[in-house]
Amino acid sequence: MIHLRLTLELNYEVFEPGCDFIFNIHAAHTEQQCVLEEYLNLSQNIAPSVELNRETGSRIMRLHAGAGVLQVRYDATVQLRHHVASPAQIEEVAVAQLPADVLGFLYPSRYCQSDRLYKLAMREFGHLPTGYRRAKAIRDWVESRTTFAQNTSNSNTSAIDTLVATEGVCRDFAHLMIALCRASNIPARFTTGIDYGADPILGPTDFHAYVEAYLGGRWYIFDPSGTAIPMGFVRFGSGRDAADVAFATIFGPVRGSAPIITIQAISNNEGQLIIPYHCAEALSTDG
Amino acid sequence: MIHLRLTLELNYEVFEPGCDFIFNIHAAHTEQQCVLEEYLNLSQNIAPSVELNRETGSRIMRLHAGAGVLQVRYDATVQLRHHVASPAQIEEVAVAQLPADVLGFLYPSRYCQSDRLYKLAMREFGHLPTGYRRAKAIRDWVESRTTFAQNTSNSNTSAIDTLVATEGVCRDFAHLMIALCRASNIPARFTTGIDYGADPILGPTDFHAYVEAYLGGRWYIFDPSGTAIPMGFVRFGSGRDAADVAFATIFGPVRGSAPIITIQAISNNEGQLIIPYHCAEALSTDG
Amino acid sequence: MIHLRLTLELNYEVFEPGCDFIFNIHAAHTEQQCVLEEYLNLSQNIAPSVELNRETGSRIMRLHAGAGVLQVRYDATVQLRHHVASPAQIEEVAVAQLPADVLGFLYPSRYCQSDRLYKLAMREFGHLPTGYRRAKAIRDWVESRTTFAQNTSNSNTSAIDTLVATEGVCRDFAHLMIALCRASNIPARFTTGIDYGADPILGPTDFHAYVEAYLGGRWYIFDPSGTAIPMGFVRFGSGRDAADVAFATIFGPVRGSAPIITIQAISNNEGQLIIPYHCAEALSTDG
Amino acid sequence: MIHLRLTLELNYEVFEPGCDFIFNIHAAHTEQQCVLEEYLNLSQNIAPSVELNRETGSRIMRLHAGAGVLQVRYDATVQLRHHVASPAQIEEVAVAQLPADVLGFLYPSRYCQSDRLYKLAMREFGHLPTGYRRAKAIRDWVESRTTFAQNTSNSNTSAIDTLVATEGVCRDFAHLMIALCRASNIPARFTTGIDYGADPILGPTDFHAYVEAYLGGRWYIFDPSGTAIPMGFVRFGSGRDAADVAFATIFGPVRGSAPIITIQAISNNEGQLIIPYHCAEALSTDG
Repeated sequence: MIHLRLTLELNYEVFEPGCDFIFNIHAAHTEQQCVLEEYLNLSQNIAPSVELNRETGSRIMRLHAGAGVLQVRYDATVQLRHHVASPAQIEEVAVAQLPADVLGFLYPSRYCQSDRLYKLAMREFGHLPTGYRRAKAIRDWVESRTTFAQNTSNSNTSAIDTLVATEGVCRDFAHLMIALCRASNIPARFTTGIDYGADPILGPTDFHAYVEAYLGGRWYIFDPSGTAIPMGFVRFGSGRDAADVAFATIFGPVRGSAPIITIQAISNNEGQLIIPYHCAEALSTDG
Repeated sequence: MIHLRLTLELNYEVFEPGCDFIFNIHAAHTEQQCVLEEYLNLSQNIAPSVELNRETGSRIMRLHAGAGVLQVRYDATVQLRHHVASPAQIEEVAVAQLPADVLGFLYPSRYCQSDRLYKLAMREFGHLPTGYRRAKAIRDWVESRTTFAQNTSNSNTSAIDTLVATEGVCRDFAHLMIALCRASNIPARFTTGIDYGADPILGPTDFHAYVEAYLGGRWYIFDPSGTAIPMGFVRFGSGRDAADVAFATIFGPVRGSAPIITIQAISNNEGQLIIPYHCAEALSTDG
Repeated sequence: MIHLRLTLELNYEVFEPGCDFIFNIHAAHTEQQCVLEEYLNLSQNIAPSVELNRETGSRIMRLHAGAGVLQVRYDATVQLRHHVASPAQIEEVAVAQLPADVLGFLYPSRYCQSDRLYKLAMREFGHLPTGYRRAKAIRDWVESRTTFAQNTSNSNTSAIDTLVATEGVCRDFAHLMIALCRASNIPARFTTGIDYGADPILGPTDFHAYVEAYLGGRWYIFDPSGTAIPMGFVRFGSGRDAADVAFATIFGPVRGSAPIITIQAISNNEGQLIIPYHCAEALSTDG
Repeated sequence: MIHLRLTLELNYEVFEPGCDFIFNIHAAHTEQQCVLEEYLNLSQNIAPSVELNRETGSRIMRLHAGAGVLQVRYDATVQLRHHVASPAQIEEVAVAQLPADVLGFLYPSRYCQSDRLYKLAMREFGHLPTGYRRAKAIRDWVESRTTFAQNTSNSNTSAIDTLVATEGVCRDFAHLMIALCRASNIPARFTTGIDYGADPILGPTDFHAYVEAYLGGRWYIFDPSGTAIPMGFVRFGSGRDAADVAFATIFGPVRGSAPIITIQAISNNEGQLIIPYHCAEALSTDG
C-alpha cells in the first residue's frame, strides 16, 4: 500500500461579472484508491457543489466565483492498493460481454477519431496476440513514433494531428493510444491525475494524462508518453478524452496562472514508506 | 395522445466467422413515450441481450450472428404524450444548476467540435435573447445556411465540415446545431428515431436524426433539417453525436441492404386518431 | 524508342447556358516525348485554344461548349526516348542550386501538406542515403503502407488523409509521396497521363497519376501506387498536385460519362516493337 | 507618384553546419512599382543569387550562411505610379479569356481550399453583380466576419480554419478572401510587402499580406484585414498563398528575432510629398 500526500493550488483573477467553474481536481474514489483525508480551501466565501460520478469515481466540483482573486487549494492523502496482474493472462473482452457503460469507450470522440483509423490499426496491430499484450503493443508503437515536446500542440490537437506531427505532450500521446485501441475494438479512456515524483528532464510534478484500457473485466493503466511512473498516479477524472475531464472548465472572463503542485510518498499504516517504481506487472485502480 | 405503429426490417448477409452487432432500434422508454406493445424477430436462433440506459431511456441490443442471412424485424406500438410548453417561457439553465449527467452534453464530441466554434457562436448568437428562443435561433440559422442534399456527406462528416460545405442530410444538420448550442453553453444531444409520414420530396419514412437541447430543466426537440414533423418522432437513442447512437454498429464482415420501415398513426384508447402536425409550441419527450 | 498509339474519348452532356472547359489531355512536348501525329475532334463546331506551358511542356486546351452533346476525341502517336540513369549515381540538388522554376515544387500545395510532415519525414527518411535512393525509399514506404482501393477517396482527399486512411487510388499515392519528398527537401510534382497496358486486376487502361522528383538536374519518374509500368507512361500535364492538372476542369452544368481510352505499342521507325517493361533504372522524360 | 523609402533588417543566429535561405524581401519590379535605388548588406561575406520572376516581378534571393550571426539589411527607395480605375467599370474575365499564366490562380492551394467552398460562395456571392464589385463584396464579407487578433493562428492555419475560427491576422484574412474569390471563379493571389505607416492600434510598420484579384485584365489590390492603406503597399512577392512567398524560407538550424522595419514617404521628383491615403478607386500595381 502506497500513501501519497498531495497539494494543489490554483490561482485565478476573475473579472466582472464573475465566472462559473467546473473543476476536476478531487482524488477519485475507487476500490483501489482511498482518500484518507482531504481539505479544500477557497479564497472566496462561496459554497461549491461536489458530485460523485458513480461509474468512474470521479468528483466534479462546480462553483460560481465573483470578480476578484480566486485561490483554490486542495490537499489530500491518498492510499493506493493496486490490483496487480500478469500481462500474459489478461484477455480482451468480447463486444457482446462488455458492460453497457463501457460501450461508450469503444466509440470515437472529439480528440480520438478511431473511426478514421480502423485500417491503420488492422494493418499494424490486427495480427498481434490479443489481450493486454496488444494494448501494450499499441502503447509502445505510440511512444516509439512520437517525440515528447512542449508547445507543439494545443487544445485543438487530436489523435490524428499527433499521428501526423509525431510529437506532443502527455495528453496527445494518450489521445493517440486511445484512438488506436478503440480502432482495435479495445475500450479505452482518458484519465487525468497527478504523477508522483519530479522528472529530472520534464521538471516538477504536474497534472498528467494517461490511458486506461478495458481488459479482463477491469481498467488497466497505460502511460504512453513514458514520462511518469504508473504506480504513482493519483487519479482525478476519467472520460472519453480531454474534453470530458479538463481539470478546470471555465465559463467567464478569467486570467489564470500555472498550477502549483506537490506530491510526496509517506509512510503507510504499517509504517512502511513505499516509493512508486516501474514494474512489469499490469496495474489497475478501477475494477 | 398520439398512437403510432411502426415496423422496421433490417436484412444482412453475415460472412464467416460471424459478427457482433450493437443495435439501437428499440423505441425508448421515457415518461412521455410509452411502448404499448412490441415484437422482435430474428431469423437466426440467437438470444440477444437488451439493456436499458436509465439516463436516456434508450435500449441497446447486442447479439452475435453466425454466418448466413440475418433478418431483424421490430414492430411496436408507441404512445406519445408530449410535454408542451410556450417557447417564451423556457429559460436556459445556468451551468452551476445543470444536473451532473447533463454536463457531458456541454463538451465537444467527435462530430460536434464546439470548442472551435465559440467565437462564431458568440458573434452570431451571443446578443440574442436567451432560452428556448436562442436555441431556436440557432436551429433556424443552421437550416437557412444548409441545403438538404443526399450523398454529399459520409460517416466522417463533422459539424465543421457541414458549416463549410453548407449541405448535408439530417445527421449533418443535427451535428452542426449541436456544436453551435454547446459553443453557446446550451447542452445539446443527438437523438435518433423514426419520423412520421412520408415526405413528398424526400420519399418514404426513414431513420431520422434530430436534436434535443436542455432548457428549462428538460430536453426539448428541434429538427434543424426541417424535413420532418417533430410531433411524430418516435425516439430510439440519445447520445453525444452519431458515434453513440448508430442504429447498427457492426463488428465483423457483413453486407447490409437498405432498411424497410413503415409507420402509421392509429386510434388511441379514446378512439381518437391524431395525426402529428407542425406546431409552434416547444415539445419534449424526455424530462 | 517506344512508339505508343493512344485514343481518348470524353463524352459530356452540356446543359444551358453552356459551359467552359479546361482540358489537359494533349500529350506533352518534352525532349524525351515526341508527338509524331495527333488529331483532335470535337462534336461541336467550336474553336478551342491550346496553349503550351514552356516550363513543363504541358498543353492546356480551353473551349466553350454550347448546350447539348459534347464529344472530345483525341488520338495521338507518341515516341518515347527515355533518359535512363543508374539510381546510385543520381544525387539530390542543393536548395541553393535548384533552378528558380523548380522552387515552387518544394512548397506545400493543396493536397500535399508537406509543412505538416517535416518531423515524420525526418524520422523516417532523414538518416537514409540521399539522392534517387532516398526518393525511392519514400516511394516504397508509401506503397508498403497504403492499399490500392477504389472508392475510398474523393476530390477532397489529401496526402494527410491518405497517410491516416492507409488506402486510396493512384492520385492519393502520388500526393502522399510528393508531400513526403517536399518535407525531405526534394522537389516533387504531380504528373498525369495514360499508362500502357491493361492491368489484369485494375482493368483497362485509364488516366494515371504519378510522381516526378527533381534529382540530378532532371525530373525522374516514380509510380508509388505500383499499378503501372513507368516506361509506358504517356505524359499529359505536370503541376503541384491534382488541383493543377485535372484532365478536365469544368465551369458550368454538365453530366459526364467515363472516359474511353485505348493505348497500344506499335513498331518504331526501325521496325522494332518495344513493349514497356519494368526496369531497375531511373527513367526521365523531362530534363 | 508616391515615393517611399524603406529599411528592413533581419537578424539570425545560424548554428552548425550552416543554413540555406530563400528570401523574398526585394521590392518587386512592375510597371507601376519602380525601384529607384536599393542596397543590400549581408554581415557574412557571401554571394547571394537574386532571380527575377518575369511573371510576377518578384525577386528571390538565395544564399547559404555559415554558422554565426547573419544580419540581412535591405534599403530601397520605391516609386509607385498606381493604375487607378473606377470600380463599376472593371469586369470579370471569362475563364476562356484568362491568360494561361493566370489559370493557376483559379485553383485551390495549400491554404486556400477553394474546392471546398463552391457552395458557400455560390450562396453568398452568386447573385451579386459581377466584376470588381463582387470581389469587393467578398473582401467586405471576410472583414465583417473576422476579428483581427494576434496569436490566434499559426503557420498551419488555412482559409477554412479562419472561416470557422472567425479570427486571425492579415495572412489569414488574405487566405480566406482568396479561397472565396477562386470559388467564385475570380483568380486571386497572395501578395506580401510592407505597409505604409504605423497603425495606432497595431503598432509599427510590419510585413503585410494582402490580396490581388485578376479583374479587367489586371491584378487589383484588396486589403481584407482593413488594417493598412493599400495605396502605401510596397510589393515584394506574389504567389498562390503564403507557402509561395514567405519572406524567409529556412533550411537549417537557426534562431531569428523580429524584423526591424521602417518606411517613410519622401518627396518625389517634382518635389511633391504624397502621403498614401484611403481612396474609393480600384488600385493596381501589376498589369
